[in-house]
Amino acid sequence: MDDHVRPSRVVILGGGFAGLFAARALRNTPVAVTVVDRCAHHLFQPLLYQCATGILSEGQIARPLRTVLRRHKNVQCLLAEVTDVDVEGRVVHAERPDGGTSELPYDHLVVAAGVRQSYFGHDEFARYAPGMKTLDDALDIRRRLYRAFEAADAATDPDERRRLLTFALVGAGPTGVELAGQIREIATRTIEREFALIDTDQARVLLFEGGESVLAAFGPKLSRRAARTLERIGVEVHLGTLVEHVDEHGLSVRDKDGGPRRFDAGTVLWTAGVQAPPLATRLAKATGAAQDRAGRIIVEPDLTIAGHPEIRVAGDMMSLGGLPGLAEVAMQSGIYAALRIRHEVEGRTRPPRPFRYRDLGSAAYISRGRAVVRRGPLHMSGPAAWLVWLFIHIAFLNGFRNRLGAVLSWLVVFASGARRERAFTSRRAGPA
Amino acid sequence: MDDHVRPSRVVILGGGFAGLFAARALRNTPVAVTVVDRCAHHLFQPLLYQCATGILSEGQIARPLRTVLRRHKNVQCLLAEVTDVDVEGRVVHAERPDGGTSELPYDHLVVAAGVRQSYFGHDEFARYAPGMKTLDDALDIRRRLYRAFEAADAATDPDERRRLLTFALVGAGPTGVELAGQIREIATRTIEREFALIDTDQARVLLFEGGESVLAAFGPKLSRRAARTLERIGVEVHLGTLVEHVDEHGLSVRDKDGGPRRFDAGTVLWTAGVQAPPLATRLAKATGAAQDRAGRIIVEPDLTIAGHPEIRVAGDMMSLGGLPGLAEVAMQSGIYAALRIRHEVEGRTRPPRPFRYRDLGSAAYISRGRAVVRRGPLHMSGPAAWLVWLFIHIAFLNGFRNRLGAVLSWLVVFASGARRERAFTSRRAGPA
Repeated sequence: MDDHVRPSRVVILGGGFAGLFAARALRNTPVAVTVVDRCAHHLFQPLLYQCATGILSEGQIARPLRTVLRRHKNVQCLLAEVTDVDVEGRVVHAERPDGGTSELPYDHLVVAAGVRQSYFGHDEFARYAPGMKTLDDALDIRRRLYRAFEAADAATDPDERRRLLTFALVGAGPTGVELAGQIREIATRTIEREFALIDTDQARVLLFEGGESVLAAFGPKLSRRAARTLERIGVEVHLGTLVEHVDEHGLSVRDKDGGPRRFDAGTVLWTAGVQAPPLATRLAKATGAAQDRAGRIIVEPDLTIAGHPEIRVAGDMMSLGGLPGLAEVAMQSGIYAALRIRHEVEGRTRPPRPFRYRDLGSAAYISRGRAVVRRGPLHMSGPAAWLVWLFIHIAFLNGFRNRLGAVLSWLVVFASGARRERAFTSRRAGPA
Repeated sequence: MDDHVRPSRVVILGGGFAGLFAARALRNTPVAVTVVDRCAHHLFQPLLYQCATGILSEGQIARPLRTVLRRHKNVQCLLAEVTDVDVEGRVVHAERPDGGTSELPYDHLVVAAGVRQSYFGHDEFARYAPGMKTLDDALDIRRRLYRAFEAADAATDPDERRRLLTFALVGAGPTGVELAGQIREIATRTIEREFALIDTDQARVLLFEGGESVLAAFGPKLSRRAARTLERIGVEVHLGTLVEHVDEHGLSVRDKDGGPRRFDAGTVLWTAGVQAPPLATRLAKATGAAQDRAGRIIVEPDLTIAGHPEIRVAGDMMSLGGLPGLAEVAMQSGIYAALRIRHEVEGRTRPPRPFRYRDLGSAAYISRGRAVVRRGPLHMSGPAAWLVWLFIHIAFLNGFRNRLGAVLSWLVVFASGARRERAFTSRRAGPA
């Protein structure tokens, strides 16, 4: 084949932070890039909980990949689900929504397909306790949250009413903590004057965490402060508590003292663990790569798979030195993978420097005017941390209009509690 | 029973324009009002097509009924589906989303449950050609529209690509015309630089109408102008054409000359007819009321059902002297029904004046800067009509924030073609 005229073909699996930033970083490289994702949009995952709780619309946190990449003339987007990677033949197989299949030959492959919710072997819980990874999930959670208050208001049995007003969250990472805070805010500030028969203030929010602290990644000091803030706004935090069973009426846990306990709840949401999708296992088998406990692919220091210098894994699906599944890690690893490809295409021969994650810190929103921010030795909480949270999220939100819209939505919810995006649909999706 | 202390109970079936305006008009009346709807929101139906085509979010056109009615202390809202009306016992039976049932005794009943899409006896078409009545419908249509372009870009067969780029609309009333204009605008102004392999400009939009004119309700002059505008922006208008069959590949029609014709299309949308829901038939049977061809209940001049002065029908579900199914008719009939109840509760004995619809005119948006407006002898089209359209819709949109947001969205799409709400979900809805 005449490699001098044909530009190298780069296929990127996934249009999340890792995939998108990889595609962008290849802008001025003579390669033909294809980004494959089963969603047509890039999702700003860190604000998904605000879509689920009615502050932001889908369009405010999800922009079409094509729009984001429209000035990148060497990038094509394909809406399809990757079904297999032929590692020997260097071809990606994907199924399109119209039922057709696409074969995408590649010279370089960037695998950035992310992770999904894990129920630790209990996938049957998913039916009663949805996770929060996709826009579909967010709309499902929005429906469950607001419908629970409607059902409680209509219920005639006091026990059933109490159950419907109980919200249980499994997992006290950022998403669990943010959702817990939001549900209490909805109950006390958004809908508190709209119901005749129930006192929405009485809504119980239970936060279950198997470990010994909330927001463990923020360190002991901020963990304690976050837990205090949560308790103050009315969230009941249950640490060292393992969820053993979830059904349509609530959940059963085993608490610190080993005792089993039952909690009736009308809504259970699951943010406890993640696992790599089946594609990771297929890829590991085909390449001989090892996987960690969550199924993530263990990569070399340059993000390649051992023995496969043409395959790089980036983002949540890569396992490297215990790096956390953060948007920032995904962006940086995506950019690193792209730069490695560029250097190879440009014929640089120097052995690459290994990927190093530059920790820019992290932030989590707890409730109105309360956040925690950690950056190196700096630990902040309270209103000042909330301001930092605000600036970070404004800076990273994609597109000027989304930023403006989000800031307006935040000002309104902060000042008045009102949430514009409360409309939910019935769960009956259209046919076909 | 002691009627002196118990306020009269008014049950309103439906929270659309008729039901909402009826509830509002009962504000200062000593009655206990319950509004039952299977959606928790009031939908601003005239802008549903803008949600379907990515200009507005769900929250911008749908506000929670509770929010809209929160200052009406004599009104309660119930999220439930009405299953039956016991006319003799004066009790409404409804099923709540939690599976429980509610019994609502009434002294006055306002039936304002609206209409649904009619496929003229061919409900099997619904699978391939969704209608547009609910938020679910709008999100389904949004998904189909944007996914069709994605699929066309990925298709390898030129015929299949052409098929996927063909959009067929059945029915040239306001909704069909508005959707046709929007799809051409999406193709030529929103996504036209985002696809590498297809020329979105080539998207064919076919508009089929059984009658002899588009927007027939606007009179012959505006009909002709609207048809001309549609043709100019690239919509193929097929008048006097009956759709005989719809399947997953397209549709078959019988045209003016009686000839059968086949059109392959990737997307078919249905806005051709309406029918009253099964509740109308049950109510007609129980009361002996007559129904018109669409199943709407034929009412007395004071909107009651003959022989049942305690039951009034308002909005799209009422049939009275050929009044059209417009938002304005629904509002006025809802208010009229409420005032009649007020007069009765207040013990006025004068026989009521019959309901008279005051035609304030109507407006339909065709494409960027083009609309038609009819008010009495006044007929307008073009940019001036578009301005009138703009003012009417700003005036009627519920809530200050929705107005502001909608105006910003309209300015952006008008100036640049950009649509913020393009994100669509997969059609797999969450379980449970």
